[in-house]
Amino acid sequence: MIDKSVNWPGGARIAVMLTFDFDAETLWTSRDPANARRPGILSQGVYGAKVGVPKILETLRDEGLKATFFVPGWTAEHHPQRTEMIVAGGHEVAHHSYSHNWIDPDYPEKEVEEMERGLEALKRVVGVVPRGYFSIKSPRPIFPNSHILEIFQDEFREIYRWGGLYNLVMHPQVIGRPSRIALLREIIGFIRSFPNVWFATGTEVAEAWSAAHDA
Amino acid sequence: MIDKSVNWPGGARIAVMLTFDFDAETLWTSRDPANARRPGILSQGVYGAKVGVPKILETLRDEGLKATFFVPGWTAEHHPQRTEMIVAGGHEVAHHSYSHNWIDPDYPEKEVEEMERGLEALKRVVGVVPRGYFSIKSPRPIFPNSHILEIFQDEFREIYRWGGLYNLVMHPQVIGRPSRIALLREIIGFIRSFPNVWFATGTEVAEAWSAAHDA
Amino acid sequence: MIDKSVNWPGGARIAVMLTFDFDAETLWTSRDPANARRPGILSQGVYGAKVGVPKILETLRDEGLKATFFVPGWTAEHHPQRTEMIVAGGHEVAHHSYSHNWIDPDYPEKEVEEMERGLEALKRVVGVVPRGYFSIKSPRPIFPNSHILEIFQDEFREIYRWGGLYNLVMHPQVIGRPSRIALLREIIGFIRSFPNVWFATGTEVAEAWSAAHDA
Amino acid sequence: MIDKSVNWPGGARIAVMLTFDFDAETLWTSRDPANARRPGILSQGVYGAKVGVPKILETLRDEGLKATFFVPGWTAEHHPQRTEMIVAGGHEVAHHSYSHNWIDPDYPEKEVEEMERGLEALKRVVGVVPRGYFSIKSPRPIFPNSHILEIFQDEFREIYRWGGLYNLVMHPQVIGRPSRIALLREIIGFIRSFPNVWFATGTEVAEAWSAAHDA
Repeated sequence: MIDKSVNWPGGARIAVMLTFDFDAETLWTSRDPANARRPGILSQGVYGAKVGVPKILETLRDEGLKATFFVPGWTAEHHPQRTEMIVAGGHEVAHHSYSHNWIDPDYPEKEVEEMERGLEALKRVVGVVPRGYFSIKSPRPIFPNSHILEIFQDEFREIYRWGGLYNLVMHPQVIGRPSRIALLREIIGFIRSFPNVWFATGTEVAEAWSAAHDA
Repeated sequence: MIDKSVNWPGGARIAVMLTFDFDAETLWTSRDPANARRPGILSQGVYGAKVGVPKILETLRDEGLKATFFVPGWTAEHHPQRTEMIVAGGHEVAHHSYSHNWIDPDYPEKEVEEMERGLEALKRVVGVVPRGYFSIKSPRPIFPNSHILEIFQDEFREIYRWGGLYNLVMHPQVIGRPSRIALLREIIGFIRSFPNVWFATGTEVAEAWSAAHDA
Repeated sequence: MIDKSVNWPGGARIAVMLTFDFDAETLWTSRDPANARRPGILSQGVYGAKVGVPKILETLRDEGLKATFFVPGWTAEHHPQRTEMIVAGGHEVAHHSYSHNWIDPDYPEKEVEEMERGLEALKRVVGVVPRGYFSIKSPRPIFPNSHILEIFQDEFREIYRWGGLYNLVMHPQVIGRPSRIALLREIIGFIRSFPNVWFATGTEVAEAWSAAHDA
Repeated sequence: MIDKSVNWPGGARIAVMLTFDFDAETLWTSRDPANARRPGILSQGVYGAKVGVPKILETLRDEGLKATFFVPGWTAEHHPQRTEMIVAGGHEVAHHSYSHNWIDPDYPEKEVEEMERGLEALKRVVGVVPRGYFSIKSPRPIFPNSHILEIFQDEFREIYRWGGLYNLVMHPQVIGRPSRIALLREIIGFIRSFPNVWFATGTEVAEAWSAAHDA
């Protein structure tokens, strides 16, 4: 996800990719084939194709930007005009399997088949032979730093008022996200704005605790 | 959902429908018939009928507005006074099946039966023969744009600080919503407020990456 | 939940009850008996009893207020000191079954037994014979009006920009809540701040739509 | 969690522990072994190890702080360099079982085995023999006090406008949290800013209610 060693064109400090997963109805049919007969549910995917994609393309055109659209083969076959609109807009069509179905990892050959069918469909419908990518993910934050910081501050202020121990529990895959690393700096800075705070490890706390209670 | 070609009365730019799904207890009994004997759970539906509807009607009357109420046949039969209050208020009663039950798509005849029973009940209870509508849906946003924009800004600022690659992944059925299209414009504007940013597609990034690492 | 006909003491406009469900571990053991052997999970209930209740009582004492504590019989038996602290504080102990277990509605006698065991335990442990209450509920809001209003405004502004149809879908048990009725007034006021808006029912919209397309 | 009787070093009012659960892939493999063959899912754990931990260590170094990392044996075996980075940074490595698997409480011997394997792995990989800790938990707040207070205020203002009864239902394990105790004080203060408010217990309300209706 992050690599400082890359020299982007024009000496850019950062490269920005805008990618769109054009899953259309496959997002729901891949969960439950019966959804194919449930217009109410499918209509979400229909909305993405009918209204979403054209509005996105209109916005990108107004902004003079090229983006990357991941298009499952099924989507290309069932929404050929939309897929062609994407290509006609000069955007990149990337590969996203055929049906977006969840593949049982015990049957890797099915995954290969899914990929090949997807590639074949894109080639046939819009004459595109895309490449694939793999990137490592971390859970997307659903709250801004200001929100998490406020929760922390509410908690810390009162525990400080009582006196005692504050144990801030974190998980690397979450607090390790770029935005959360910035948050960690803010939290530490906030704690340091209080007098008489002792930062300690679990062992140090346990020892002080025993010393106080065994005495 | 959006159609610019319609000429609304009085040359209005936009038509606004206020619709209420008066599901009452059916929202819970349709999920699990046993809920019919669980007062604690049903009380939510009871609240909607006993307190919610009168307060809504009072508010609409004070505002001088007419709205559309979707009333399942079961609700009309079990809350006839409330259903009559809606009609007496001059509001439209629209059709919403009979029991709100989830119909197995393999038995379309049951769906027809549900619809007919619902129509029959509305006709019998309040003498109304409503029409049905079908609209395409997209997932309703649960956070305002300012919230999502702030999360994005937290993330982008720190990745920019590190330097590297920022990949913004979007889905047409979500980002394609009217409010989210406005958000997309805001996000692009925010990114453009930083110097040395390179907007690129997946292939361009992959090529720059390879060039940097194979070298 | 709301009754304007009641004359509260001292001609009060509103009566305010502070109630606490002192479920302790029963909140988890009632979901899965095996949780009784899962200290990590139970510790949440332990926290409520060990830290929560004393802090609540301290706060109520500082504020000079009496509250109502719903105490399952199991809690009274396993946290007698805490239950006595509540009584000693002059607060009301109310009835909340014995084990907080979910009763299969097909076995009402079990519910009776649950209630009687709960009453018996409270009488034995703290000598209290409480009364029960029943109130109708509606889903508790998880977002403030300002949050929902902002989401609505984001959406409406952009659809207005495009022109078309805006369909606001609501549910009586949700929008009928006191806070949401206030929100409904705010939303209508916001819409009215725009020129060229047509408020219409589903039928009126369908007719204008047909007129525009059949023409 | 809170203990005022402890005398922290240097007469500190509060001790602050920064702890990190370095679960890596075990967070997902412990839920479903098949996840071990799902790169898309595992990549979250990979992110925590590959990007998260180094960024956390860099931040702690910049801040001049020592923290406590809970490392399952599996993580130590599969991310030895990362685990060594933690030790090399002068941080404490604490014990977190071997595989993070959920142990059936009916088989305590498996739990013992899990713990021993975890200890053995840490000793072998980084030569550390950590201690364990046990702390009581309460559900972590996901919204700041300002958010909950606003929801309460929206609700109270309108019920006050209608007149009637306001019943604030709370749970000790939630409202008993330090931050929520502060919130309870704020809520009471807000209610007291209104004239003609009667604070009452359930029995007092029931009596006033009966008196009004039986009359």
